[in-house]
Amino acid sequence: MWSRCSLWALRAHSHRYLLTPVFAYTVRFSSGTTATMGAIKTRTVNTTERLAKLRELLKKPKNNVKAFIVPSEDQHFSEYPAHSDERRAFISGFNGSAGCAVITLRDAFLFTDGRYFLQASQQLDSNWKLMKQGLPDVPTWQEFLSKHLEQGTRIGIDPTLISAADAESLKKSLEPRGSVLVSLQQNPVDVVWGKDRPPCPHNSVFPLDVKYAAGETSQSKLQRLREEITKKKAVAAVVTLLDEVAWLFNLRGTDIDFNPVFFAYAVVTPTEAILFMNDAQDQHSIKEFLGSDVEIRPYESFIPSLRQLTATLGANKDKPMLLGDKTSLAVVEAIGQENAVLIPSPVATMKAIKNETEIEGFRNCHIRDGAALIRYFAWLEEQLNSGVELNESQAAAKLEEFRSELDLFRGLSFTTISSTGPNAAVIHYSPDPDDCAIVKKDQIYLCDSGGQYLDGTTDVTRTLHFGTPTNEEKRAFTRVLQGHISIDTAVFPNGTSGADSFARRALWQEGWGKRFPEYRHGTGHGVGHFLNVHEGPHGIGTRIAYNSTSLKVGMTVSNEPGYYADGRYGIRIENVVIVREAETPNNFGNGYLCFEHVTMCPIQTKLIDFSILTAQEKEWLNSYHAETLEKVGPLLRNDPRALEWLERECSPV
Amino acid sequence: MWSRCSLWALRAHSHRYLLTPVFAYTVRFSSGTTATMGAIKTRTVNTTERLAKLRELLKKPKNNVKAFIVPSEDQHFSEYPAHSDERRAFISGFNGSAGCAVITLRDAFLFTDGRYFLQASQQLDSNWKLMKQGLPDVPTWQEFLSKHLEQGTRIGIDPTLISAADAESLKKSLEPRGSVLVSLQQNPVDVVWGKDRPPCPHNSVFPLDVKYAAGETSQSKLQRLREEITKKKAVAAVVTLLDEVAWLFNLRGTDIDFNPVFFAYAVVTPTEAILFMNDAQDQHSIKEFLGSDVEIRPYESFIPSLRQLTATLGANKDKPMLLGDKTSLAVVEAIGQENAVLIPSPVATMKAIKNETEIEGFRNCHIRDGAALIRYFAWLEEQLNSGVELNESQAAAKLEEFRSELDLFRGLSFTTISSTGPNAAVIHYSPDPDDCAIVKKDQIYLCDSGGQYLDGTTDVTRTLHFGTPTNEEKRAFTRVLQGHISIDTAVFPNGTSGADSFARRALWQEGWGKRFPEYRHGTGHGVGHFLNVHEGPHGIGTRIAYNSTSLKVGMTVSNEPGYYADGRYGIRIENVVIVREAETPNNFGNGYLCFEHVTMCPIQTKLIDFSILTAQEKEWLNSYHAETLEKVGPLLRNDPRALEWLERECSPV
Repeated sequence: MWSRCSLWALRAHSHRYLLTPVFAYTVRFSSGTTATMGAIKTRTVNTTERLAKLRELLKKPKNNVKAFIVPSEDQHFSEYPAHSDERRAFISGFNGSAGCAVITLRDAFLFTDGRYFLQASQQLDSNWKLMKQGLPDVPTWQEFLSKHLEQGTRIGIDPTLISAADAESLKKSLEPRGSVLVSLQQNPVDVVWGKDRPPCPHNSVFPLDVKYAAGETSQSKLQRLREEITKKKAVAAVVTLLDEVAWLFNLRGTDIDFNPVFFAYAVVTPTEAILFMNDAQDQHSIKEFLGSDVEIRPYESFIPSLRQLTATLGANKDKPMLLGDKTSLAVVEAIGQENAVLIPSPVATMKAIKNETEIEGFRNCHIRDGAALIRYFAWLEEQLNSGVELNESQAAAKLEEFRSELDLFRGLSFTTISSTGPNAAVIHYSPDPDDCAIVKKDQIYLCDSGGQYLDGTTDVTRTLHFGTPTNEEKRAFTRVLQGHISIDTAVFPNGTSGADSFARRALWQEGWGKRFPEYRHGTGHGVGHFLNVHEGPHGIGTRIAYNSTSLKVGMTVSNEPGYYADGRYGIRIENVVIVREAETPNNFGNGYLCFEHVTMCPIQTKLIDFSILTAQEKEWLNSYHAETLEKVGPLLRNDPRALEWLERECSPV
Repeated sequence: MWSRCSLWALRAHSHRYLLTPVFAYTVRFSSGTTATMGAIKTRTVNTTERLAKLRELLKKPKNNVKAFIVPSEDQHFSEYPAHSDERRAFISGFNGSAGCAVITLRDAFLFTDGRYFLQASQQLDSNWKLMKQGLPDVPTWQEFLSKHLEQGTRIGIDPTLISAADAESLKKSLEPRGSVLVSLQQNPVDVVWGKDRPPCPHNSVFPLDVKYAAGETSQSKLQRLREEITKKKAVAAVVTLLDEVAWLFNLRGTDIDFNPVFFAYAVVTPTEAILFMNDAQDQHSIKEFLGSDVEIRPYESFIPSLRQLTATLGANKDKPMLLGDKTSLAVVEAIGQENAVLIPSPVATMKAIKNETEIEGFRNCHIRDGAALIRYFAWLEEQLNSGVELNESQAAAKLEEFRSELDLFRGLSFTTISSTGPNAAVIHYSPDPDDCAIVKKDQIYLCDSGGQYLDGTTDVTRTLHFGTPTNEEKRAFTRVLQGHISIDTAVFPNGTSGADSFARRALWQEGWGKRFPEYRHGTGHGVGHFLNVHEGPHGIGTRIAYNSTSLKVGMTVSNEPGYYADGRYGIRIENVVIVREAETPNNFGNGYLCFEHVTMCPIQTKLIDFSILTAQEKEWLNSYHAETLEKVGPLLRNDPRALEWLERECSPV
């Protein structure tokens, strides 16, 4: 499934997105947002009082700013923020996942994109002006600040919620009008929110077994990071992203929905490793697990500690602190820009390449995960055949139930996209339990879901039809399948970064599959190992990051071409694949790579138009189904309905 | 066939070429160079006296420079310079097609790339230091100027031989050391060359029939250009590239080898059109053809006229003169940088899209051209079977003979690449008549050739084996063919620019076809209509220009994947194709595009490994051969040997 995409990202690469607007339609509420704020989804929040209080704070001498920016981001640039970090939703009433509020002493503006025009217009009260980014003559919020605010405006920002890189380019764009960006010491939204603000999550943290799950000790990972530090002639590396900290120390948590991470930062020097985290319930066992090499300090002491460490380590231009490129302005300000260097995070690069234990875990959890999916589809088919009425959310709940029975299951990896008919064309769809469609037997049903397991993370999409598909649906499904097979069977030179025309070629033959509107997302994203279902830096598509990161042996990536007929149906076929060395007849130079698929779930042959499938593609399908039957069949001994369904769906064509 | 690639281009995009060094190996001598300088190819020229004279001139007060740059370019940035423009070859003795000389008051440096290390080391005398660009620690000549010359050096350049854009970036790189680029009023190399310098070509110019060849009057083209001028709020457009001038006025000439162009410039205003050209032998008929709307002025008066026009037109920042991005510094200096704007040439963009008459001409000349090729291959096979000994150059001469008998033939479009065995792996190979290999029956024979016809330009490569190919050769040939078919049959959305992974996929399956070293060129270049065989701005490959120019209906482009086994053999299969609207079952938005192939010559089935060819590919091959037989067969009535060969080669598989 496709990741959330902040307005920051849209802006930063806007020239590319004009050409290939692949990523403009990729977001869906986190279930967290839906759970706590679902009820007010279409209800207006009265923000008069909140805004009045906020403006009082802005005017105070310690702040003295005439505008304040409230972005969606949390201090770790997490895909799913905790409820306590949903500041923009609190101050504006608009709780879509992407948007930025700009509040001046007189006006309040909410900038969002086409996905959220309707929702925002319903949720915003009359205090707010909705700025529909993407429409002609509507500025981005950055352009608005630099072109529409008065000259010489002091604009406040919480420096923990903006990346240093974005702040830098924003500052540059403000310069010509003499406006400045002012880092406020305390976020005034938090002050206004006051006691009503949910507490910052502070859940239990647990270690990941090295032998059976992580595959590498934290000591070894730290050692490798230290080699990077030395190579870069730096004095330390600062790790600010939650999944990077979790990976580095082989720890997991439950502070964030779907992502098994916990609030933390880390600083690693050639001799020390300091982990900044909340006092865990099981602090003692964590300390024991980490050993004496790692010092634990309170989460809140991170910024003051950084200041002190910069001094004691003697960081400077020639011996800088290494920061990942998604580090906040607050961190850079604490260290001092002249003592820091921003680079693509070395931890992200290390984490992206899975070791053999992680890969084995990926294989195993995908087989188990396949069993739950197969049980679910067999059950769903029976329900629909019996005339039982089920809505999309009820269906998804059954799938979660099957998953929850699996070994090593630790929760979903994202909200299940359980979508029937037209809803399947909404890429970021998430059924509202209180108001969603009934799954219809005579419509396409698209299910994109995944689980978190101690041995890996899954993300799989299957598209099924429980009645009689139309010829058009079959043709579209077959073209998507051909794209999927084309990626699955691709062999490519080491050093290749992932553009995705292979996945689109078959659709193009039909006059379908342009990046916009019919196939409006990339083809693959990195997948974490019992971590975030979306991780970088690699992927398959036209994003700049993808183009600048070549695929490497051991990387996990999704293969998920799709086709979306707005208002009618949507199709996506998604497997997780692992980059492996290819055995080609001739291996020159750095060799060639290929993909190993680990997702094990039948691809519905009923939806295939065999007149356009080649012999080679048929062969691939039969081989994939034989493999699926062999691997998952044994897990279905106690569910004859599922086994029968699997056997039928895996019959050779 | 692949185009020459100047060091400028290599430098300008060096960051991309590091990743995809596709274009580093693409050049071959123009036959002009070979003809006049072939004899000294491996002979050292004594440059002592030339350099001494040059240095005297550099020291003169009117110049007062301590270094002088002698690039390969002529004032029109032609792919094939006239002999009178081969200044770098004259001053250094090195006559490879790519290289740049930098002469200081004490030293002389010749910068070139890997293709020419051997040749340059043989041709340069002891006055010269060979700078092997591309080797570690060897600077480019631009880096050399900015980093290795003394601070504050005045560096001379002939401003007619450097593009304004390149001069600009060079100036910037010199700034930190206080060095400056000085435009000399007269090129001191020309002064040293003196009477020995060949005269600037001044051959006849002739009009192109509008109804049967050009398909659009010059008046109409000027009108379209004027619309661009108005749209850009400019006062005039300055046209400096020879093929652009030729296209705009429907004139052709013979001043440059292989390119049917003549030395000229043009300035077009909303009301006037001034053509700067040498007094043609047939000036009267040219004047009559152009009509009273076009004023002809002497070629030499171009720069002074530009100065005067800038004043009379009142060009300024808001009403600038439009210049193509390949315009020389001299032109910009004459106009004044503040009065000019550099843009992708509107004439190039117009010229790239062929009208229906040009397209029909392309189809027709390719059928005739196919007849010559087929006659040649049938003849060559018979010669080899009879044991006749022929060298590569003698073979190529026979092909030229067959072509010269064709209707509307006006010369070759480039030197024929007639290459046997290992020579076929040298992409820029050109057989030296005095010293080339014997064509062997038991080796791969690669022939890349093309003709200029009044109704179009051809460029075709066929790879044949007249004996028994090895399994490896067959496999490589088949993979290249699969790439060729994949491009030929591609359907893609309007707006797509041409990356070429489709052409590489089949080779990758074998562990072959990486950009370097095995398939080290792009897959397609634009082709002119009775003009330069290489033209921009579009193409299929990873060049920046290609990625930023989408393919449009009516564009002509080559489809020429290849595979090169250094020291053993090379394979390339090249057709010219025309971008057409695709008829897809579903056409949304701006529609979809596809290619129509116009090259008609059998693809040798003897070289195919049928075990890896799909049913669809076999079908394509049979259909292509049926089409070729039907279209070319009727032209071979007087050559039974060729007709028999064609029928045999086109038999269904």
